[in-house]
Order: sequence, then C-alpha cells, then structure tokens
Amino acid sequence: MQKAATKSVLLAGTTDTFPSIEYASGFKAPDPVVYLQTCANKYLVVPQMEFGRASRTGRSVHVFTPEMLGLQGPARGQIKKWALRLLCHLEIKGVKVPVFFPHGVARYLEQHGISVSVALKDLFPERAVKSFDELRNIRESQQAAVIAMRAAVAIITDSKTDSSGCLRFRGRTITSEYIREHIAKTLFDHNCMSRDIIVAGGPQAADPHETGSGSLRAGEPIVLDIFPRNMTHGYWGDLTRTIVKGRASPFMRRVFHAVKAAQSVALAHVRAGVNCSTVHQSVVNEFSRRGLLNSISEGRGAGFIHSTGHGVGLSIHEAPSVSTAEGRLKSGNVITIEPGLYYPGVGGVRIEDTIAVTSTGWRYLVPCEKKFEV
Amino acid sequence: MQKAATKSVLLAGTTDTFPSIEYASGFKAPDPVVYLQTCANKYLVVPQMEFGRASRTGRSVHVFTPEMLGLQGPARGQIKKWALRLLCHLEIKGVKVPVFFPHGVARYLEQHGISVSVALKDLFPERAVKSFDELRNIRESQQAAVIAMRAAVAIITDSKTDSSGCLRFRGRTITSEYIREHIAKTLFDHNCMSRDIIVAGGPQAADPHETGSGSLRAGEPIVLDIFPRNMTHGYWGDLTRTIVKGRASPFMRRVFHAVKAAQSVALAHVRAGVNCSTVHQSVVNEFSRRGLLNSISEGRGAGFIHSTGHGVGLSIHEAPSVSTAEGRLKSGNVITIEPGLYYPGVGGVRIEDTIAVTSTGWRYLVPCEKKFEV
Repeated sequence: MQKAATKSVLLAGTTDTFPSIEYASGFKAPDPVVYLQTCANKYLVVPQMEFGRASRTGRSVHVFTPEMLGLQGPARGQIKKWALRLLCHLEIKGVKVPVFFPHGVARYLEQHGISVSVALKDLFPERAVKSFDELRNIRESQQAAVIAMRAAVAIITDSKTDSSGCLRFRGRTITSEYIREHIAKTLFDHNCMSRDIIVAGGPQAADPHETGSGSLRAGEPIVLDIFPRNMTHGYWGDLTRTIVKGRASPFMRRVFHAVKAAQSVALAHVRAGVNCSTVHQSVVNEFSRRGLLNSISEGRGAGFIHSTGHGVGLSIHEAPSVSTAEGRLKSGNVITIEPGLYYPGVGGVRIEDTIAVTSTGWRYLVPCEKKFEV
Repeated sequence: MQKAATKSVLLAGTTDTFPSIEYASGFKAPDPVVYLQTCANKYLVVPQMEFGRASRTGRSVHVFTPEMLGLQGPARGQIKKWALRLLCHLEIKGVKVPVFFPHGVARYLEQHGISVSVALKDLFPERAVKSFDELRNIRESQQAAVIAMRAAVAIITDSKTDSSGCLRFRGRTITSEYIREHIAKTLFDHNCMSRDIIVAGGPQAADPHETGSGSLRAGEPIVLDIFPRNMTHGYWGDLTRTIVKGRASPFMRRVFHAVKAAQSVALAHVRAGVNCSTVHQSVVNEFSRRGLLNSISEGRGAGFIHSTGHGVGLSIHEAPSVSTAEGRLKSGNVITIEPGLYYPGVGGVRIEDTIAVTSTGWRYLVPCEKKFEV
C-alpha cells in the first residue's frame, strides 16, 4: 500500500495557481479544485456547478463533486474535506504535494491520518518537454509578441526628437503608456492578452520589472518586454528588445554589445543534455571577461541581477530554470535566454528570445531582429 | 513575546495567488515574494532584481533581499529560507498563515522552531470593506462591463433569424465566439482585460461556467457573463444578463421571472448587519415557493446549484461569500447578487449585478437593464 500511496500526487487550488491541474486534466476554473493522480488514474473534485464541464474535458479523469463524496451543508465548501473524502474513498494513506500546496489542507489531512510529503523535485516534469501542439501554441503567442515588438520599434524609429530630447510621433509626445497601449492593442488583435508590458526608458530600466511611465527620450535605452498569453489556449510567449532612438552613450553601447554577445554565448551552449547552470555561467563569464561586474549599493544591485532564463508554457515562468539551479536541458524544452545588465540611476539593457531546445542545439520559436540604435 | 508573535501574519507566494500582498504593500510581481505583517510593521522579501521597485511603492514597508538576509548561492532562490531568515532577524517565533499558505514553506519553518498556525478567519478582513478609491476602481470596471453588455445585447436584438433558427447579423451567422470577441474588444477599449467571457446559448448554459461556442439560436436563453479587470489598477467588475432572441418557451420564461424575482428578494435583504446566509436563503426560499426545486441526475445538478454571490475587488471571487457560510454584511462591502437556475439538456438563466452594501441597504455600482426577450 505505502509504496503505491507515495506515488499519488495531490494538488488543491485554482488552475491559475496550479497550471498542472489544467495540463493534466484539461479542466480550468476560477475557483479551487482538488486533483489527484495515482499510478493508474486521475481524479478531480469540483463544485457541483462545475460537474458538467469537468466531465466533458475529453480526458480520462474521474470527476467527483463534494455531494458525491457524501459532504453536506457548509462542509461542501471546504476543499480540505474534499481532499480527505477522496483519499478515504480510494483508501490512499499518503500523498506527495508540491511546495506551494495549501498548508491548511495538508495539516487537516495529517490530522486525519494521511501522510503528506513535500516533493523536492518537480511533480510534473513532463510539462517542461513540450508536445507538437504546445510548441505550436507557444509559437502563436511568440508570433504576436514579435509583431507587436516590430510595431513598437517602428514608432520609435519613425519618431522625431524635440528640442528637449523627448520623442514625438504624429504630433504627440511619445510616452511609455502610449507605446504600451499600442503593443497591447496589437496583441489583442492577435487573440492575446497581456499585463505589465514593459516600456521603460532611461533610469527606469534599471529595475528589470519596472513597467515604465512618462516621456521617452532620445539617447536613452528603452527596454521593451512583451509577454502575451493566448486567450484561447493559455500558452505564453516572451520577448525583450532594448533600443535607443539616435545615439547611445559609449557606456550603454558597450553594455548593449556585452548583452548581445552574452546571449550569443549562452545560445551557443544550449542543447539537450547540457546543464542549465552551464548556460547561466557562460553569461556570467562573458560579463566578467568584459569587466562588467556586479555590485550592490544600498540594497540595489547593479550588473547582471537575475537569472539567464526560464521555461515558458502554461506559466510564464516555469521549469526549467536557466540559473544556478541544478538540471539538464532536454529536447523539447522551451526556454528564454535573456541576459541583461542594469545600472541604477543610468538604465538597463536586456535581450530576450524564446527558443526550443533540440538534441543538437536550439531554434527560435519566432526570430526577431536585434537592432539597438534606431 | 508569544502574544505579539501570534499576531504576525506571514504570506509567501505571488501577488496573483495572494492579492493581499499587493493590497497591503502596494507591490506586485510575477514571482513569489515573502510578506510579513506584525502589530507595528510590514516587511517584504523580494528577489534582488525587484528591490528598486519594491522600495518605491510609497507605503511604509521594510524591504529585504535574500542577500540582505545573508543568503548566498542557490539558497537565494528558496523562499522558505527567505521566510526563516526574516523571522529569525526579527526574533519572531510564531506566525499565522492563511489556508493557502505554501505547505513546503510552513513545514520548513516548523522544522526550524517557528510555530505556524493556520488562521480560521480571514487574515485581511479589511479588504472586504472598500475605500472610496476602491469603489471608484470597481465602478470603472463595472462601467466597462455594462457598456460591453449593452453592445452585445444590441447585436442580438438587431439580428435576424434564418430558416434554421440561427441568428444572423450583417450577413453572418452569429456565434458565441463572435459575441465574445465583440465584448472583449469593447472591454479592451475601456482599458480592461477579460478571460473566459461567457456567451452560452441553449443547453450550453446549463453549466454556469461554460463559456459557450457555436451558433446562437432564436428562442433559447443566452447567458452573457462579463467580468473585466482593469489593466491599470487590477480591480474587477462582474455582470450577467440572460436574453432570448424572440420568444422563450413557457418554462424558460417562468425560470427567468423566478430568477429576476429571486434577485429582487435577495437585494431587498441586503444591508449592513444582515447575515450573508439570510440573503442566500431568501433566494432558495423564493425558488422553492415557485416550485423550482433542486435535483441531481448522474452527478449533474439541476436548479440553483451555486451560491448567491461573492465579494469583488482585487480578486474576482473574494470575501464576503453570500452563501450558507457565516458572516454579516458590512457597509462598504462590494458583492454580487447572482441567482441562477440551470437545467441540463435545456439551458440556464442567471442575472447578476455588482452592488455596494450601505448601512441602510445597497446601491448599484453601475445599473444595467434586465431585458429578457429582445
């Protein structure tokens, strides 16, 4: 019993918090559900109102409602009880859960004799290796990102500089907000939604996730980071470019060429079987070799202050992590390679592409130009 | 020590999973962070790359990075260690966490001598009482929903019926997808995004969260459920109408009038101090009184198979729950009142408004007509 039991994986939460539920069962919903996977079977517990939908996913999933598990009254609304009833019904005494499994549910199960172990490894490693359909889905989102990027770059390219150094286009001052709206509209026209599109110019770009606001200026690098999610299938794309209207400072030009070179160096390391940390370290080494070292001042970091990349799929950030973490690349992984350099008070540069890992190397999901001064 | 310690609230996860982090700190980010609230202070632990942004929220929050807490190497990426280091740094020995707090983090803290108790009550009850600014934000999203609803209803109203009973508009057959796209575009034009907009006709509408697909037909109720989220401030709106092109069947007409009456009855009960379950029960009673009783067949429920409503704010579903759960309404709550009736194989009707609770009753965030046959 125990051996089989420890192989059962339990999840409890929304499909937004645990995309693995949607991945494994084909079911998505705004409210929490319970998902159990044994060696042989998949089970879902969903609210009564979701039973019809959950039964029609086309996957072989056994669907229960709280009522079918004998729960009555307010207990029907407590997912810790859904989980316990399901496990008791199946005579399962132990489960594995991910780090982010709800503590309130785990504690309740333990109080009722279920052994709950936190998995140290990814419970759905198959998610990191994309199927043909998944690659097509991510490519569709990435295509939208590339089209939106080209549209944004075109506006900045075609803009003029006024006497104060601000960019103007068709009679108006160009702001981060204006470019962001244009990007969002283009993505929307390609059935994608997006939040937190980054259009950060000058010193704002020193914080990698600063979305940016206000007038954009000539001579300052502008980081454009676009990560659309297809509204139908839910897969993401991810793309970043950094451009300057006119001429950049000698330092920022040096920084751009370092980031571009670091991305090339990292990509040259990518192929199935290579350690993710090797790819990440190649970026660190390239920056070191060029004398662009990290520093910290009053808590804020300068230099290369994030990892080299991450997996992309039903989550915008998923396995594998291209960082100091352990793990080897596999054929079918979809990852970003996105080195960047950031200097508080000055600005930042990041170049990011989303690629598919192959047995012999990698290929772009969708290629996109890497101009700097436009 | 222990008394003060038990008052500290700990959260760990993304701001999407725990909107309370954004609510309390003003910070949002795609990756997990740690948030701690003691009697006197608020603390955030964020990745090095987020330090600049987190320091600029304009709230009094003490921001740490893993490095500032002495973490080095791969440990910098483990939020369980961020949480432990922060608690040790502040000499806090016990914390309260919500049900959905990550079990992997809770277990690690317990293994290192921290007492972790799961809160039975809402840890951020203040979120359910909206400020003036929050009401304005939700009203803005609700206004977008109303405009999109009117546009969708106008298309169906202006459509013609072809010989097979399908709706046609400007030379094309009207599908759920066509109406959904029109709604999404209208919302987008009002700075809102949306996923899973429901346009479900005929039998599809028997599942409350079925989004709907294919041709829409005359004589069948069409459920339109629109829940936009403002792309700037992140607050939601929520609105549902059910309409029929032409004449509904006598049964569905009876169902519509029952749902409309149930909503009126529920609204008549709404005011600060009233038990949420009283409001919910008034809907159950109204349906019973009209002989529209619940039943279950092969797992699928028929009748009134969900709760009467939910809070709306930074989450689309948040406190208070207007259901059998305990709790009293407060002035400043923003809730939906959305009775519905569902009949597998036949269809469904739901009417939903988002309202603000006041000391003497309630008011619409934004009113919207309740036509049935158009």
